Amino acid sequence: MTEVLELAKRLMAAESVTPATGSVFDRLEAMLDPLGFSVHRFTRGDGEPGSPEAPVENLFAIRRGPEGSKHFAFAGHLDVVPPGGGWHSEAFEPEVRGELLYGRGAVDMKGAIACMVDAVTHVPADAGTISFIITGDEEGPALHGTRALIDYMGEHGHQPDLCLVGEPTSVNRLGDMMKIGRRGSVNIWLEVEGTQGHVAYPHLADNPIPKLVAMLAELDALVLDEGNDWFQASNLEITDLEVGNMAHNVIPAKAEARISIRFNDEHSGASLSELVGSIAEKHGGVAKPIISGEPFLTPPGEFSDVIARAVKAETGIDPEPSTTGGTSDARFLRAVCPVIEFGLVNATMHKSNEAVAIEDLSTLSRIYTAIAKDALG
Amino acid sequence: MTEVLELAKRLMAAESVTPATGSVFDRLEAMLDPLGFSVHRFTRGDGEPGSPEAPVENLFAIRRGPEGSKHFAFAGHLDVVPPGGGWHSEAFEPEVRGELLYGRGAVDMKGAIACMVDAVTHVPADAGTISFIITGDEEGPALHGTRALIDYMGEHGHQPDLCLVGEPTSVNRLGDMMKIGRRGSVNIWLEVEGTQGHVAYPHLADNPIPKLVAMLAELDALVLDEGNDWFQASNLEITDLEVGNMAHNVIPAKAEARISIRFNDEHSGASLSELVGSIAEKHGGVAKPIISGEPFLTPPGEFSDVIARAVKAETGIDPEPSTTGGTSDARFLRAVCPVIEFGLVNATMHKSNEAVAIEDLSTLSRIYTAIAKDALG
Ligand SMILES: [Zn+2]
Ligand SMILES: [Zn+2]
Repeated sequence: MTEVLELAKRLMAAESVTPATGSVFDRLEAMLDPLGFSVHRFTRGDGEPGSPEAPVENLFAIRRGPEGSKHFAFAGHLDVVPPGGGWHSEAFEPEVRGELLYGRGAVDMKGAIACMVDAVTHVPADAGTISFIITGDEEGPALHGTRALIDYMGEHGHQPDLCLVGEPTSVNRLGDMMKIGRRGSVNIWLEVEGTQGHVAYPHLADNPIPKLVAMLAELDALVLDEGNDWFQASNLEITDLEVGNMAHNVIPAKAEARISIRFNDEHSGASLSELVGSIAEKHGGVAKPIISGEPFLTPPGEFSDVIARAVKAETGIDPEPSTTGGTSDARFLRAVCPVIEFGLVNATMHKSNEAVAIEDLSTLSRIYTAIAKDALG
Repeated sequence: MTEVLELAKRLMAAESVTPATGSVFDRLEAMLDPLGFSVHRFTRGDGEPGSPEAPVENLFAIRRGPEGSKHFAFAGHLDVVPPGGGWHSEAFEPEVRGELLYGRGAVDMKGAIACMVDAVTHVPADAGTISFIITGDEEGPALHGTRALIDYMGEHGHQPDLCLVGEPTSVNRLGDMMKIGRRGSVNIWLEVEGTQGHVAYPHLADNPIPKLVAMLAELDALVLDEGNDWFQASNLEITDLEVGNMAHNVIPAKAEARISIRFNDEHSGASLSELVGSIAEKHGGVAKPIISGEPFLTPPGEFSDVIARAVKAETGIDPEPSTTGGTSDARFLRAVCPVIEFGLVNATMHKSNEAVAIEDLSTLSRIYTAIAKDALG
């Protein structure tokens, strides 16, 4: 227990708000190096600090097993969200109070990465190949994060058989939930153009707002699906309206809106873009989609059984295989191999006084050990 | 003709963008003084230049007729809209080119005020009481303009029997249209509050946008009336939408819109505010109305006949009694006595190269003379 707690504190003491580079990666490299890993680090992005193209660091580490052995990957991120206010201790000075370790990244997800490192000390080197796929940009635009790592792995022939992402998936107790899938996400900008005019002479103008309103009413009434065995129903939210007309007597020339759809595996970003586009067109408008991620699903089976067995053995709990919540880098890793997320309790993630139960760190370390052994075995 | 042209040029040469004060009023006073008018001028508003409370000048002039005689009022404004670009001559250096006099205010409405002044030189002093109700803020917020003049007249017992407003009501030829009424105007701000949240967890949020969309769809579908003998149908336009949510993944806490209603005499500002308020409430929102003006109507009869006879005699045209278009200060003067608007051709009003036909100035002067004599007789 002491070992994993120290590892977590070391990672958490390095300030690493997205996009993360430098010190926190130095520390992880220093942990993996003595365990027999070859560590490759690279920085991508050449934009100004604060821009979506700001430099971000990535790390791929691998300890090769015997020829022909399986390859199991741990994936995660060393960047954290900004601390915000309301902390009782310093966000980047990890502090133990009572049963808990406080500090930004405790559960999301430096604590879990410490558990991964601790776990591999208990997995014999000849059990198989183990790798770490660690980015410094998961909480941000994710342009040059896990996607760049996947490109690197492809170019160098690193092909894991299974991948575990250490996001904090547990809800009330460590072990109560794993994520076997995530919904996809698409944001769509809607625009209707009209002809500006004076409200006293509406016949000389063409007001775009009623068209946008009718379009949004139709979109809001859509039932995309009823959900299925593994996913909740897809959901469309109207997230913004914009005209920006200061003149009370003027009919504006343009009206805009934005919607956000979280969708299950009955749709794709492209199919929804087409559906919304046709509704927009019907009402005289246009739709411009940006697909943030396609849904992924690793249907319950061999891999989820491996995780469930390890969790049950260490906690007595049967983890629920869930697909709820936001997106994660698993939306990229799905292209490489079956991927499931399992990690610490997420109650304090992204909040002030983020904290992990010290007991959970050692339990998760044992769970990760069991999963890695079982996956390689 | 020379006389009225010179009067128009003198008024137009004084720069007087809303709110107008000083020089342009000095010039009008200098014209009315020798004609036997007692002139009272006062300035209202103590705000900064550019604010709705910026100082504005008003002028009330009266030439009393014999005891018991009738009182006929000319009303209008000496302020003008800003010149803008695209002029072939200086906006405030009136210039005759061909048959036309160019300059800001040529038709809206310094030209008409020159005609009023010229007209009274042809009305014998013993024909009755004549007054001028002239503001420097008709094109602006109109907070301290004609309303202040009406207050002043009430306090001093000046009670016209009929009032002619010199707005440019003619469309294609001088005399083709008078305004016997104007629609009322109300702007209503609509707001729906919800609960902010993340698009991935919509059950924890309460999106206000669909409620606003449903509210606007219902408002847009309203048929307020079908119009009546003297008014076109009332019309509702949605003029603005506002959420201002930059975060793609966030369900916003508030959504706003603005509507503008131009309404006929089957409604009042209050009745429409109540109607819209109840629809807003039904959809979980609130409505905040600002009534710009109630409708007015001086039904065709004695006064419109006086104007029609004068126009017919001078131009051969039967003026159409209309209630179309925007609002004017007649919306305030209606509280004093029957009011009708009649003036120059409005084709160039508020545009660059605003111009009046010199011939129209002398014709309008004769029409105004005939109207005043007939109204007093
Ligand atoms: Zn995370
Ligand atoms: Zn005017």
